[in-house]
Amino acid sequence: MKAAGPFPPDFRADSGHLLLGDRTAAGLVKEAGGTPLFVYDRSVVAERVRRFRAAFPGVALHYAVKANPFGPLLAYMAGLVDGFDLASAGELDMLQAIGGDGLPTSFAGPGKTDDDLAAGLAAAVTINLESEAEWQRLHRLAARDSRRPKVAVRINPPFGLKGSGMKMGGLASPFGVDHDRVPTLVRRIIDSGADWRGLHVYAGSQSLSSDAIIESQRATVALAAEIAGAAGASPPEVNLGGGFGIPYFPGDQPLDVRAVGEALKETLANRHALLRDTKFILELGRWLVGEAGVYLTSVVDRKVSRGKTYLVTDGGLQHMLAASGNFGQLLRRNYPVAVPGKFGSEPEEEVTVVGCLCTPLDLLADEVMLPRAEVGDLVAIFSVGAYGLTASPQAFLSMAAAGEVLV
Amino acid sequence: MKAAGPFPPDFRADSGHLLLGDRTAAGLVKEAGGTPLFVYDRSVVAERVRRFRAAFPGVALHYAVKANPFGPLLAYMAGLVDGFDLASAGELDMLQAIGGDGLPTSFAGPGKTDDDLAAGLAAAVTINLESEAEWQRLHRLAARDSRRPKVAVRINPPFGLKGSGMKMGGLASPFGVDHDRVPTLVRRIIDSGADWRGLHVYAGSQSLSSDAIIESQRATVALAAEIAGAAGASPPEVNLGGGFGIPYFPGDQPLDVRAVGEALKETLANRHALLRDTKFILELGRWLVGEAGVYLTSVVDRKVSRGKTYLVTDGGLQHMLAASGNFGQLLRRNYPVAVPGKFGSEPEEEVTVVGCLCTPLDLLADEVMLPRAEVGDLVAIFSVGAYGLTASPQAFLSMAAAGEVLV
Repeated sequence: MKAAGPFPPDFRADSGHLLLGDRTAAGLVKEAGGTPLFVYDRSVVAERVRRFRAAFPGVALHYAVKANPFGPLLAYMAGLVDGFDLASAGELDMLQAIGGDGLPTSFAGPGKTDDDLAAGLAAAVTINLESEAEWQRLHRLAARDSRRPKVAVRINPPFGLKGSGMKMGGLASPFGVDHDRVPTLVRRIIDSGADWRGLHVYAGSQSLSSDAIIESQRATVALAAEIAGAAGASPPEVNLGGGFGIPYFPGDQPLDVRAVGEALKETLANRHALLRDTKFILELGRWLVGEAGVYLTSVVDRKVSRGKTYLVTDGGLQHMLAASGNFGQLLRRNYPVAVPGKFGSEPEEEVTVVGCLCTPLDLLADEVMLPRAEVGDLVAIFSVGAYGLTASPQAFLSMAAAGEVLV
Repeated sequence: MKAAGPFPPDFRADSGHLLLGDRTAAGLVKEAGGTPLFVYDRSVVAERVRRFRAAFPGVALHYAVKANPFGPLLAYMAGLVDGFDLASAGELDMLQAIGGDGLPTSFAGPGKTDDDLAAGLAAAVTINLESEAEWQRLHRLAARDSRRPKVAVRINPPFGLKGSGMKMGGLASPFGVDHDRVPTLVRRIIDSGADWRGLHVYAGSQSLSSDAIIESQRATVALAAEIAGAAGASPPEVNLGGGFGIPYFPGDQPLDVRAVGEALKETLANRHALLRDTKFILELGRWLVGEAGVYLTSVVDRKVSRGKTYLVTDGGLQHMLAASGNFGQLLRRNYPVAVPGKFGSEPEEEVTVVGCLCTPLDLLADEVMLPRAEVGDLVAIFSVGAYGLTASPQAFLSMAAAGEVLV
């Protein structure tokens, strides 16, 4: 028997049936025309935003679209957050499609093509520069298109986010400009007459350690002041990045955002005079939407092989690669998993939940204890609202597409 | 400096320009309208089929569509192989779309839904049963639709393919029926009046060891005879599976298919009388098309960070997840990589080739020696013809789609 990850605290049952936005999972599946189905619960997102506002008064909240660009969710976010961060011109198209591009928006990414930069210029979004060469290209394109570019500089900081799922910063990096070269670039930008919007640091992601995030934010604010001093210019905005993690696996504890907020308040209270009028931004994706998503699949077969019971579902890694343990994880562990028709019931048997693909990689839950599920019953994987469907090989083995719904 | 994997032996240069199907890579990119672009070279596929025919006379060759379902490639395969193996109803649609469903076709997969089974029945393909419960469902659907089902039984064998990339068999498994239960199921199938087509064993994949494959094929033929004896019925067909690997990484040696062929010839010469009239099938995907594919990207930025040179390309793991080391690999190693405009030239510098995604996972070649490539130049990753684009999270970060072309 292996443990599964912890359920988000937001979900309830009605007579043993999992509720998602006051609807039963089974009812939603029926309405959607079947499984596999991703359900995103807006009340969970709203609760996370409330928690953010309480912990970080005065700090702007941006949504990192890459976490989940599903149209209805994006439209919902537009009413909750203060801005967006984009990772591609495709995301800009999506934002424009839902009319969300009126909010402050920035565009980061190490491989922005000339077309990407031109699209960003035309939409008047803040382009987070990743290199001096990118600035040269942007400067040329802006002149060609007679536009005044809005630019921030993404810094490759001399520190990383400790204990984060993916450490960025502190080393050579394809992301951002090495910190010691940033003041010179900032001067060139300002001297060119461009609209310099400020600085951006993204030191890591998926951290559950408030201490690590506090330390990283302190270092970022100090670095911004140092760069401002060296460049002789106060940044209108400093994007402190994100990095807020969510629990996925057995033993994971939620991030203490209150502690992070208190420490950031103190950090900002003591900030250098050069940053007095600076607007501070946190750019969050996973933490806002990750726990709002539930992936619903149906049991197609129950089979016993050499004493082990398998639930074979109509889903799989083609929709939820990270849950199979095959996306940047060294060690496979189980996401939270449940039988929605018996939510909260006592576990009855040890089962291994697999997808419908012809590969042993397609493992959704390994040797977990669950209430008994028959063929036709639903199985749910939780905490799939971020980096789920779009971060998965949806065309793999040409399986049926998954539906998505916001409730 | 880290090594990169070996180039397939098939590619040549003209005045230093990589040729793909007698065209330069740059010319193909121009014609396709840009990068990222997957190019599949049919001459490489044809050469692999010739090699197969020479090594395995009298053995039927099936193409495993899941390796690469690109329409023009599938249509080309239809003229070269003896049949197809499908992993989904979606693949059946694709096969029908190119008119390839006249060839013998089988349909495997542990999570076939009732709709999948009905589609297989309607198309009169051989359904490789994965469980007794699946047989019950198929039997019921066949009666409902007044069809005589064509069925084979996929066996979960008591052995696995040693040293294969993914070991299947020898343990509890979601794939196939435990071997000791197969004779009973075969009797039920025959007694029902269904068209029993025989047996299917898939013991593993991506093996470069001829010894391991030889041993697995010997064991499979022996197991088929044992089951035939126990069931009192000779299987019309035995699908021996595949498992033939290709070199990806430094030090990988090509599979000695001639040795496998010679051993299989001997195994079949000595086979049990119950298998005298049995047709033997090998089902190959990766080995046929993997080395035929080249992924072409363009350098968007050259940047130096803390002494390390990065080539930032317009491609990335959204098109070629396995090359980034994030698809079932424990240890990241470099695929074969080249600068097509200087193919065969001496390496000049150590570079790290990354994609355009905002994640440190998006690494295409780490600290490899290459001829110098400038912004706008092409960078090619080789051996991406199987489990490439369709096995990658194409919607990740909403980046531009990759093109595909068969030359």
